[in-house]
Amino acid sequence: MTFNGQLASGSEWVKRLKGGVNLNQNVDLSCIIVIFGGTGDLTHRKLMPALYNLAYQQMLPEDFAVVSIGRRILTDEEYRNQVKQSVEKYSRFPMEEEIWKGIESRIYYLEFDFQDNHGYIRLNNVLKNLDEKYKTNGNRIYYLAVSPEHFEPIVDKLKLYGMNAKENSHRRIVIEKPFGRDLQSAAYLNEKITLAFSEENIYRIDHYLGKEMIQNIMVIRFANVVYESLWNSKYIDNIQISSSEIVGVENRGGYYESSGALKDMVQNHMFQLLSLIAMEPPASLNTENIRDEKVKVLQSIESVTPEYIKENMVRGQYGKGIIGNNEVLAYREEEKVAIDSDVETFAAMKLHIQNYRWAGVPFYIRTGKRLANKSTEIVVQFKSLDKVLYFKEFDYLEPNLLGIKIQPCEGVYFQMNGKKPGVENEIIPIQMDFCQNCNLENNSPEAYERLIFDVMKGDSTLFTRWDEVEYSWRFVDAISKVWKNIQSDLPIYNSGTWGPDEADDLLKKDGRNWWNI
Amino acid sequence: MTFNGQLASGSEWVKRLKGGVNLNQNVDLSCIIVIFGGTGDLTHRKLMPALYNLAYQQMLPEDFAVVSIGRRILTDEEYRNQVKQSVEKYSRFPMEEEIWKGIESRIYYLEFDFQDNHGYIRLNNVLKNLDEKYKTNGNRIYYLAVSPEHFEPIVDKLKLYGMNAKENSHRRIVIEKPFGRDLQSAAYLNEKITLAFSEENIYRIDHYLGKEMIQNIMVIRFANVVYESLWNSKYIDNIQISSSEIVGVENRGGYYESSGALKDMVQNHMFQLLSLIAMEPPASLNTENIRDEKVKVLQSIESVTPEYIKENMVRGQYGKGIIGNNEVLAYREEEKVAIDSDVETFAAMKLHIQNYRWAGVPFYIRTGKRLANKSTEIVVQFKSLDKVLYFKEFDYLEPNLLGIKIQPCEGVYFQMNGKKPGVENEIIPIQMDFCQNCNLENNSPEAYERLIFDVMKGDSTLFTRWDEVEYSWRFVDAISKVWKNIQSDLPIYNSGTWGPDEADDLLKKDGRNWWNI
Repeated sequence: MTFNGQLASGSEWVKRLKGGVNLNQNVDLSCIIVIFGGTGDLTHRKLMPALYNLAYQQMLPEDFAVVSIGRRILTDEEYRNQVKQSVEKYSRFPMEEEIWKGIESRIYYLEFDFQDNHGYIRLNNVLKNLDEKYKTNGNRIYYLAVSPEHFEPIVDKLKLYGMNAKENSHRRIVIEKPFGRDLQSAAYLNEKITLAFSEENIYRIDHYLGKEMIQNIMVIRFANVVYESLWNSKYIDNIQISSSEIVGVENRGGYYESSGALKDMVQNHMFQLLSLIAMEPPASLNTENIRDEKVKVLQSIESVTPEYIKENMVRGQYGKGIIGNNEVLAYREEEKVAIDSDVETFAAMKLHIQNYRWAGVPFYIRTGKRLANKSTEIVVQFKSLDKVLYFKEFDYLEPNLLGIKIQPCEGVYFQMNGKKPGVENEIIPIQMDFCQNCNLENNSPEAYERLIFDVMKGDSTLFTRWDEVEYSWRFVDAISKVWKNIQSDLPIYNSGTWGPDEADDLLKKDGRNWWNI
Repeated sequence: MTFNGQLASGSEWVKRLKGGVNLNQNVDLSCIIVIFGGTGDLTHRKLMPALYNLAYQQMLPEDFAVVSIGRRILTDEEYRNQVKQSVEKYSRFPMEEEIWKGIESRIYYLEFDFQDNHGYIRLNNVLKNLDEKYKTNGNRIYYLAVSPEHFEPIVDKLKLYGMNAKENSHRRIVIEKPFGRDLQSAAYLNEKITLAFSEENIYRIDHYLGKEMIQNIMVIRFANVVYESLWNSKYIDNIQISSSEIVGVENRGGYYESSGALKDMVQNHMFQLLSLIAMEPPASLNTENIRDEKVKVLQSIESVTPEYIKENMVRGQYGKGIIGNNEVLAYREEEKVAIDSDVETFAAMKLHIQNYRWAGVPFYIRTGKRLANKSTEIVVQFKSLDKVLYFKEFDYLEPNLLGIKIQPCEGVYFQMNGKKPGVENEIIPIQMDFCQNCNLENNSPEAYERLIFDVMKGDSTLFTRWDEVEYSWRFVDAISKVWKNIQSDLPIYNSGTWGPDEADDLLKKDGRNWWNI
């Protein structure tokens, strides 16, 4: 079955891509999705609701099935009931029985241990039968919704039983994060995977890339002439990329102790945002052209010395504090966290991208848990003029700011100076604002809807290519190594604040400040 | 008494002008305002409510009085009561007795014919007494709220009785529009006035300049680095200046028959908007520096031949039509309008400003009565790119538009392209919007408040200098002359539409369209 785009809005305003690999609407979507980790959190909270949402929007093909694999012993019936409950809880659309029936009958459950050879033989047989039943033409998507230690054995066995490739069919593999713990482990994992799957069939998930406003960054930059004309060191003073959470590590203390903010957020999500906001215009909108430009950004980050890291990068760990009206625990008091843990829950840094476009423009990155607000946002601060007209006549005018709000608010705003209404000559900052998810009608899709649909279409634009992973780990490893050696001076910040004072000082010494919107 | 700025907002956001002539807050505001035409419409609807509004905001000095002159026989008491009723009806602030008492006792009425010498002698005596009573130091503002035929006699008499100038006092004259019917009559009038008052004491009113968003044009352009960087022919495709009304000529048919859209709107308001949007940055914010740059725009308009006018300028006159649910009269059926009138109620034109900044960028001006919407707005349309990335992949993308809404909505918006939320790659135009008068709190001052206050301060920035009047008449006269000779082909448009088809064709033949927001 081909997807014929029946959801296109009737509005004459909507402009659709003419063609190209990014949305070839005649692409064959038929496939079986094989989910390793079918009873896990990710499957229940994200993947199954995403599949239901796609079905709700009539975006699933008829030639389609799902096989979930887990270690619990469940019948298809029992598993389907569990999934239904999850869909009811987490889907953005209401449960409609007719739609659910259509998808439910296509969901199968298989119990085996990921190390167990026999399980793969059974799986292969099941898949062959379903292939015939659903006319899925041998197309398979292996979705590894499991913890990283299972990545290697699963890939090995798929290869061992020849399930990794088939002529005239596609066999794709989806790898959840984290992709390695450092460059070495990531490279090892990558080698293992590429023995079984070619790069074009590997979909490394960074679910941030599925978020609406992150997809919008390229559109904003390259479908509007105005921005690209200003997008360089002549006009831009600095760019700030912030992702703050109010929550702490919650029940993920065990994982977090071996990760920290740097590896959990900066290496993947923050660097993806950096790449998209700083990249050169690609030669075309084709996947590889776009990825080439993103990698170039990572390659152009000024390499850092231990001295640079000490001066321009700040860690922090949350202490006690007040969130809302409640006192919250310090990180070191959290479950499964060492009482003397030196893991950072906050990281801020100044980077430079050494190319013609960005020479001299600092990029400030900041992420942390237990901060004052939940928000992911990019702020582009434009240069001001000294001593020219209004800049001369007023003591200080705010700079122009372009803000791209990624979550939980989705939108764009531009802060500028305007005349304060009134008989006197006063100037105030005013904001032109576009809010995408302010009204209820606008029910943005979940990142996973987009990402799963893209894997089905074979579009890997919103997934990270190996060299993106490689260069970001290379950079993060350098920081990590230095931080390990100076663990003694990890600042503790109060929960509910904007992190340690050192993060503010980082900008203050440059005569700048964070824009905490 | 000096105005000490007690109304300044406490917000730390508000940035105030450090000094300079535009808002020297220690300026002496004491004066007597002498209103010729004290019983007229303008005085009752605009001037008196503006004075009350200023009093309400504590912006009037204590050393202050108003003398109104009219031909009706009224006592001070009767006149004050009439004014109070007008203030209650037209002021944007509620009638508060305490404030009203403060201003009421300072209002005086004098009855005489503007031709009557004896009247001026009486007036002079009254003013001298009030000068002593109110310590106004001989400062006077003569406000000519009368029809144009009275301008000359009043100025003559003021000079005859030595009321036009006094050492160590200021004597200012405010002239309402229209300033002349053409260049010749304007020049004659100007000569007459300058015999009695120096240019710096002449305040030629164009009340559009008192409107908030028109004052904001310079702030937007020059207090924000982003706009000025894009404000030229490299980035801008065209600029559209539109002022549309839904109403017809109402009870002003007699006046309108000798004027028409060209003289009533284009020569003054539209050309002021053109000057502000197209001017070079002035050397400073001082009045004369600003006016110098505005005049340069008018001087740089490409001079027009009869052929150019026929090809690039469109007239129209409204016919019958439906407005709301009511059928409305054609212009020629209106009161005091000739049954075969050739007066235009609509004018549209393409202009070029021949300088380095604007070479090749058309300015489209349009104004008319009985149109589909009431709105004054400037739209700056930026250039698009052919065959680059999204511009290549989609059949057509809307251009970037910066809109400055002047009335009745006050605000700024930027229309850009963004990703349509959803799993597919679709692009839609989105608007970042700043609306200044959307919430009720924001009670923008009336143009006349600002203008009267500026006359009191001696700031003539928002008034037109003689050479501005001169150059705009010179240009308008050229058009007028050609149109007079081809009166036979005046298009009639239906009331409630956007004017004659010829106005759309004007842009269509350039591959463009009007943005009817």
